[in-house]
Order: sequence, then C-alpha cells, then structure tokens
Amino acid sequence: MQGYTVPLSPRGVANLAPTPPWHYAGTVVAVEFFADPAAAAATLPEGLVLDPDTPGHGVALFIDWQYSSTGKEYLDPARAQYHEFFVTLDARWNDTPVAWCPYIYVDNDAAMARGWVQGFPKKLGSVHQTRAYPIGEPATPAVAAGGQFGATASASGRRIAEARVTLQQPVADPRALALRPVVNLRHFPRLAKERQDQPAVHELVLAVLDDLAVAEAWAGTGELSFPDAPGEELADLNIQRTGAGYRFHLAYTVTDLKTLIDYTA
Amino acid sequence: MQGYTVPLSPRGVANLAPTPPWHYAGTVVAVEFFADPAAAAATLPEGLVLDPDTPGHGVALFIDWQYSSTGKEYLDPARAQYHEFFVTLDARWNDTPVAWCPYIYVDNDAAMARGWVQGFPKKLGSVHQTRAYPIGEPATPAVAAGGQFGATASASGRRIAEARVTLQQPVADPRALALRPVVNLRHFPRLAKERQDQPAVHELVLAVLDDLAVAEAWAGTGELSFPDAPGEELADLNIQRTGAGYRFHLAYTVTDLKTLIDYTA
Amino acid sequence: MQGYTVPLSPRGVANLAPTPPWHYAGTVVAVEFFADPAAAAATLPEGLVLDPDTPGHGVALFIDWQYSSTGKEYLDPARAQYHEFFVTLDARWNDTPVAWCPYIYVDNDAAMARGWVQGFPKKLGSVHQTRAYPIGEPATPAVAAGGQFGATASASGRRIAEARVTLQQPVADPRALALRPVVNLRHFPRLAKERQDQPAVHELVLAVLDDLAVAEAWAGTGELSFPDAPGEELADLNIQRTGAGYRFHLAYTVTDLKTLIDYTA
Amino acid sequence: MQGYTVPLSPRGVANLAPTPPWHYAGTVVAVEFFADPAAAAATLPEGLVLDPDTPGHGVALFIDWQYSSTGKEYLDPARAQYHEFFVTLDARWNDTPVAWCPYIYVDNDAAMARGWVQGFPKKLGSVHQTRAYPIGEPATPAVAAGGQFGATASASGRRIAEARVTLQQPVADPRALALRPVVNLRHFPRLAKERQDQPAVHELVLAVLDDLAVAEAWAGTGELSFPDAPGEELADLNIQRTGAGYRFHLAYTVTDLKTLIDYTA
Repeated sequence: MQGYTVPLSPRGVANLAPTPPWHYAGTVVAVEFFADPAAAAATLPEGLVLDPDTPGHGVALFIDWQYSSTGKEYLDPARAQYHEFFVTLDARWNDTPVAWCPYIYVDNDAAMARGWVQGFPKKLGSVHQTRAYPIGEPATPAVAAGGQFGATASASGRRIAEARVTLQQPVADPRALALRPVVNLRHFPRLAKERQDQPAVHELVLAVLDDLAVAEAWAGTGELSFPDAPGEELADLNIQRTGAGYRFHLAYTVTDLKTLIDYTA
Repeated sequence: MQGYTVPLSPRGVANLAPTPPWHYAGTVVAVEFFADPAAAAATLPEGLVLDPDTPGHGVALFIDWQYSSTGKEYLDPARAQYHEFFVTLDARWNDTPVAWCPYIYVDNDAAMARGWVQGFPKKLGSVHQTRAYPIGEPATPAVAAGGQFGATASASGRRIAEARVTLQQPVADPRALALRPVVNLRHFPRLAKERQDQPAVHELVLAVLDDLAVAEAWAGTGELSFPDAPGEELADLNIQRTGAGYRFHLAYTVTDLKTLIDYTA
Repeated sequence: MQGYTVPLSPRGVANLAPTPPWHYAGTVVAVEFFADPAAAAATLPEGLVLDPDTPGHGVALFIDWQYSSTGKEYLDPARAQYHEFFVTLDARWNDTPVAWCPYIYVDNDAAMARGWVQGFPKKLGSVHQTRAYPIGEPATPAVAAGGQFGATASASGRRIAEARVTLQQPVADPRALALRPVVNLRHFPRLAKERQDQPAVHELVLAVLDDLAVAEAWAGTGELSFPDAPGEELADLNIQRTGAGYRFHLAYTVTDLKTLIDYTA
Repeated sequence: MQGYTVPLSPRGVANLAPTPPWHYAGTVVAVEFFADPAAAAATLPEGLVLDPDTPGHGVALFIDWQYSSTGKEYLDPARAQYHEFFVTLDARWNDTPVAWCPYIYVDNDAAMARGWVQGFPKKLGSVHQTRAYPIGEPATPAVAAGGQFGATASASGRRIAEARVTLQQPVADPRALALRPVVNLRHFPRLAKERQDQPAVHELVLAVLDDLAVAEAWAGTGELSFPDAPGEELADLNIQRTGAGYRFHLAYTVTDLKTLIDYTA
C-alpha cells in the first residue's frame, strides 16, 4: 500500500494528500478583532495561555488558496484550489507569542486532510472574498486607497462570519502584519469503547512554514461579525471591537512540524 | 411589484437580476478549436450560417467572473462571483462575422437568469481555472512564457471540458484575440398544451457590450477536449484540432441588446 | 434545432427540459402560517387579491422531488432529483380561492427551467427535510403520532427558512390538506434598452396538475420561521403565528397551463 | 476543552462528531461485482488476504444515510443526512471471512470525520440513488419485480461509479445479503519531517455494528462500472463481471471498535 493519508492504495495516487512538500499560494482578506478575553481563553488547549499583552486579540482570515506538491497539481484546479476561513487568537507558549487556531473551515477534502495532519481542526464551509481585477471597475475594487473587499463564510447553510476591509495604504514592512507562529493541537480519537476518552493522537504542535512570503500587502480599516449558528462556537468569542483590515498575497511551503508537547506519551 | 427578473417582489431586492447596468470583470483562459464543420453548422439557429472563411472554428472560454450593478454587489462575493464555461463558433449574420454560443455553463443562479435574458442558453456547471499569484511558485504558474494554466468544466458530476494553455508571448494588440460580436437566441417556451411548439420568445439577438476592455493578454499553445456525457451535446462538436491558447482579463458592461430577427413577430 | 427550453441543439437532448409530460413524485413537509396580511398582499400581482376569508394565511412547503418525463429519467438521479422550498399565500382570482407563490428555491437547473416556464419564480437554494426510514430509530422518526420532522432552506449561505412538524394523526381525507390551485406569474424581461420595463412575457397563469395524488398524509403541529437575509424578502412576510404541520407524499403530472390574463397582449 | 473529534471547544458542540453512540438509518442500492483478483489483492493491507473462496468478489454500495446521536440530530437534516458510495472486497482475517473497504466517498464533513475514526478512508464525493415513492409512477420505480434503480458517484467533477439494479424478488432471509464484518485500517500520519513514513495511527480494526437491521430487501440483477478518473484508483479494480443487485433499508449503531493488529505498537 502506498500513500501518505487515507486512502492508502496500490499506486498511491488516490490518497487525499501525498507526503510533503505542500506548496501554497493564496490571497488573504483579514480583519483584526478583540474577543472577550475569557471567551478566547476558554478555547485554549493545555499548554497555552492568553497573551497577557494582547488578551482577546485575534485575526479572522479568509484565503483563496492554490496548492501544489511536486506535480503541478495547480493544473487540475478543481482539486488544487480551495477557500478557507479561520480565526487565530494571540497566545503564549512559555514566553513565545504564538497564534492559536480554534476554528477553521475549507471547501475541499484534500485541504481538510492536510489540515488535520497539521493539527488545524478543519470543517467544511463555504467561503468567499471579493476579488480584484486590473480592469473592470465598477465590477471590481481597485487595490488602492478606498478599495473595499468583502468576505463571508457559511457552514451547513448558515452564515458564520462576515468581514469587510477598506484599504488605506500599502504595508511597507510585512512584519507589520504580525503573523505569529501558529500552534495547533493534533488530535485523533480512539473508538474502542473503554478508551474513547484517551485520544490516539493529542499533541501540541508548532507549524513550520518554509519560504514564507507576502506580496502587495495593504492595510486599512476592518469590520467583522460572527453571527450565531447552532453547532458552531465562533459567536461565543463575543467580538468587542475590530481593528485593522488587511489584504495581501501569501505563500509558503509545508515540509515539517515540531511537537511541543505530546500528551499521549 | 418591483424587480426586473423573477421573482418580482414588494421591495424589488429578491429578484435574481436588477435592471441593467450589469458590470463584469473576469479572468479568461481560452483555447481555439476546429470542430467538425457539419457538427458546428448543426448547432446554428435560423438566420446564421457557418463562417465560410473559418468553417468549424470556435473558442472555448473559461472565465472567473465578478459582477456588480450599481450597488457594489462585489462586496457580497458569495452572490457576485461565478465561474463560467462556454463555447463560441464562428458564424455569419448576413455579411457580418459573429460568434454563436451554443452551450454555456455557470455556477450561479443570478448569472443564469441574466444569461437567459441575453439569450445565453445557460445551464449549471462546475468550472475551474488555474489562478496566477504574484508569489508562490511552485504553487502557481507565472504569467510569463512557459506559464501553464488548466481549466475544467463538469455538469451533473461528469467532466464535459478540459483545457490547458501554455503561455508564449504577450498579446500586444487585443484585436488579435479576435473577439467577435456574439449572437444569441433568446428563447422562452409556452406551456399551454396546444402551443408548446410556439415559443413566447424566439429572437436572434446581438449582444451589446459597452466599455469592452482587455488587459494582460498572453497567447500560447492550447489543448482542449470535450469528453462525452449523457444529456450534453458538446462532444458532438468533434474537435478536429486545437489552435492557440490565451489568458487575459476581460471587462465590459451590459445595458442593451439589439434584436436581429424576431421569429415570433 | 431541437428541444423545448434552452439550449436548443441538434439532437435535442442538451435542453434543460423537454416538452411535457413532466411527471413528479415527492415527499412533503409543510407548515401553515399566518403572515402579516399587508405584507402578504404586497406580494400579489395585478389580478389577485388576498383571500378575504383567510387574509395572510399561507403554507411553507419543503419537498424532496423526483422527476421523469417519458424516458425513466429517474435512473439518472443526479439530474432527476431535487429539493424544493416554497411558500404559497391564500389569494382570490375573481371568486376562486387560489394559492399564489411569491418565492421558491430549488437545487437543480432543470427544475429551475421548468419552473420559470410554469411561472414559478425559482432561485437556487439548499433545502433539506428529515427523512423517515422503516427501521433505524433513534436515527429516524416514525411516521406515527409523535414523529418529528425538521426542514430547512438556505440561499447564498444564509438560512432563510426553518420548520418543524410533530405528527399527531393520519389525514383521512386529503382534501383536508387544502391544496388550492396555484396561480403563477410567467415573466420574462426584454433587454433592449428602451423596453426594459416592458417584459416580453408577463401573464397570470393557472397551474394545471394532472393525476394529483396524495399518500400517507399525517397532520400535527407546526413551527416555522423565516430568518432575515439580505437579497431575500421572505422575512418581510412577518409570520404572526403558525398552524398545522403536515407530512405526506405528493405526485402529479404537468402537461398544460391556462392563461388567466396576458398583460403583454 | 470538550468534544470527541476536532475541533475541541469550550462547549463541545462545535466538534464534527460527538462521542458515540452513532445511530444510522439508510437506504441501500448495491451491486455485486468480480474484480480482477490481482487488482483486488493489491488493495489489501498487511494482515488480510483475498478470500480464496471468492477471489475478487466485492460489493459496491450506494447509501442515503440519516444519522443521529442522542439529541435527535435528524431534526437538522442539513447536517444529519449524507450520501455515501463505497466498495468492499471479500477478504480473510486469519480464517474469518471479512469485507475490506479500499475506497469510500461521502458528501458531509461529519460523516468524513466519523469515518476516519472508524478507519473508513473517506473522501468527498457526490452520490445519488433513485428513490422509491408509494405514488407517482412514472416518476418513481415501484419496489416490486421489474422496479429499476440507478445510482452514481462522482469526485471532483468526474464520474467514478455508475450502477443499475432491476428488482426480481424479495429477500426472505437478510443473511442472503452476505453482509460480512467490515475490516478497516485506521491510519493517521505524522508530519515531523523525519517520521513522515511512521504513521501515528496504523492499525487493522474490526467494525462493531450494534443492532444491525435490514428491511424491505429485494434482490435482482445488477450492472456496474467504474469509469477511469485521474486521482482515483477504483477503475484499477478492473471489473470482470457483475452479479446480483440489491435494494434494502439498513440500520445500525456504532459504539465500539475492535483492534485486530496495532502496527504502531
């Protein structure tokens, strides 16, 4: 049997995801927000605490992704493209400022499988963001001061997030985007009756992103809401206020991951 | 009752499409092809003949569209964006070279409604094209010589078209794209038993596209196939060979339409 | 060119809908409601008035349909099945009690096309209803007193209707379901600039349903809400209270339609 | 943090699947087939061999499922219902005849998550089967001799399976359906660079199905094909001939699983 994720198979081409490298290029619409700190803290796994400097601060990101491994997978865009919405919250791993991802949604099974392996707790969702074209106003915003971008996410036919960004100025230094290292919880349950409360995999991990690049970054103002929806807990974050909005291109490669704590050991 | 298309309603916001203007910005992956001339001719409505200079020549276009009317509809991308695949065939209306659209697929009901009103015979389909990002190789092609773009269309779970374009050089003069004026057949049936063969609307029309613009056009080589699928007749076009491939941005506005022949008059 | 709806084509198999007969079998979850009478009246086309005996009374219906014409189309269920949600409001055509359909949603392009031809103002939506199996409790309700059925509809990623029915007793006489004759407005716009306010088709029509049959009908209590959603006007009906709930199978055939008033004549 | 699968969360309602019990009710269309034995054997994990009595024999099953845990989840059918297509192949675990599932497709993220935990290697797919209604011919087959049912599955816009069953007679003894115990491979990779070939979870498991019930079972003739599709390996099974076709209702509950061999121990 060959392959990396399920299904393992004779030729190893049916699997949802091959062994890395996993290369990504995406366009991001993002809005900063300040959640109720107690609600944000309640989402944290053992091992992380809220960042005391920015308690409740987080970012909502909507990304139109294209993926490839080593085979120009982008030439089959029905499989290689997907839309993603996720939230990160500022946290601390010991003294290190990190970003914790409690909730994330994609519209593609391969992206869901890769995400689970990385520790991203992906569910399916329907995600959209305004696109910019070099011609075509008024059917497109300009990537320029005043340009406006909307973004939405839905799960099971219910809207779970809505954002709007109005650009003000280019971001000269991408460090201003404050992209923290992401910490995830890899988790995979056992099903044997007497061990259902003892997951087979349960480890705090640090995402390793190679060749991280940002391009054409703009900052401005941001609006964001998480409408209440049964079966989801995003709205519990109880947004107190929003901060900056951003739009930029993002790229990186995944080939590795670092375990911080293995709770099953 | 207010509104332009169905449903007409008290406030006129539920309708699938408002009264024009309809503004469009899109990214196009296109491949020239030469169909069996007899098969191409068989798709033509009364009033059109095959272009005797290019019998069987046509273009397959895959477009990622964004739409707006007068209200920044692009800020609700779940409604304003759609993917489209269609085919045009070279034809003549009297002495005028035109493009006839026999088959077209979109993934959005508002696009389907606007299309029907224009005479585009839209059905639902699932359509994808490779996207180019300014960073992120090898997850993205470059818009440069050698850059490759795939495009696919499916209907009811069956693949109906697959294309690939390899860029060679920029297109200095967009006229080289040979975008002919599009002629459609507006058609809407009657259901009263004795008049089901007498459509209520059946008229040959010329699309009027205001402010047509093309940007960042590249040409290269093209590959294209129309796999056979029950309930579809694309494969009957029986592609003999393919020609150039293109990738470019396209924008225009629809506010009008010209009737060439009204067959119900 | 052959076919009934678009696209007309050489073999006449690509068209969204063939010439009738159109046969339907479906399972219905329905809830009676009482809208704000003024809001209900505001949805009526010229020629209809609210039923003075039941002002504001209506029914919300969720139907899991299977369609066939003369070719056992049900053997290709990816095309032949669809889910539908619609609302009817009690109205009068002269002295005849009728049901007017202001809003309707389906998840299938052929159903949308047939609907438009009938005058049903169909948009795309995502519609679900609880299903009953003869075995499998607690994963299924029983079709028996106390059995509960949920039903939901969403459009563009937003929930637009939610219903719940709790069965109490079988319905001995299907006339108790009070299925009124349905009156629709067939409407198809013109796009020529100076005539966009003069639709090509605009006629009040009476649906003709042959061989109407009802089976296994149960009645009970009903709950219903129309959550507010941009781009939709269902919530404007402003439900005051709900009435009975129903679950039953429904079948009929469409071969004809009767014009009540042709406003374009 | 509460919950069973990802995402773990403060209230434990966002998780894709709760701790069992998982109750299921479904309607099955199934076709027996005989694959190339070598191709069937190539899909087997270590620990299983082809059943020497029926080498290459398998079953393709299309199921319309409804799921509930302890909270009447079926009242939210947008989440609780899903469509599934999978294949089993006759195998032996030591001397026990079992069914091995190499490939399986669903259209619901919660079903995908529960499946992974059980060892079903689920991917997303679009799956449909003809439905039977008690009224409505010719829009429905009868559950009677001669009744015909179609079923199809697609992944990423390509058809991967098509089946047809023609009923002949009821199945008096459901044991005739030859439902073997299912053996799966629970598999979850590691991502740390040096251990990507050492999965975190890799164990052969026996599915435990409580309260298994079958109802209204009919048998007849079956037709089946697995069209070739890039990124899938179903077609490699190279069907030599098909056997009986079946249609029946199926129900069971999952609360446990038995590990046969843990390859990571």
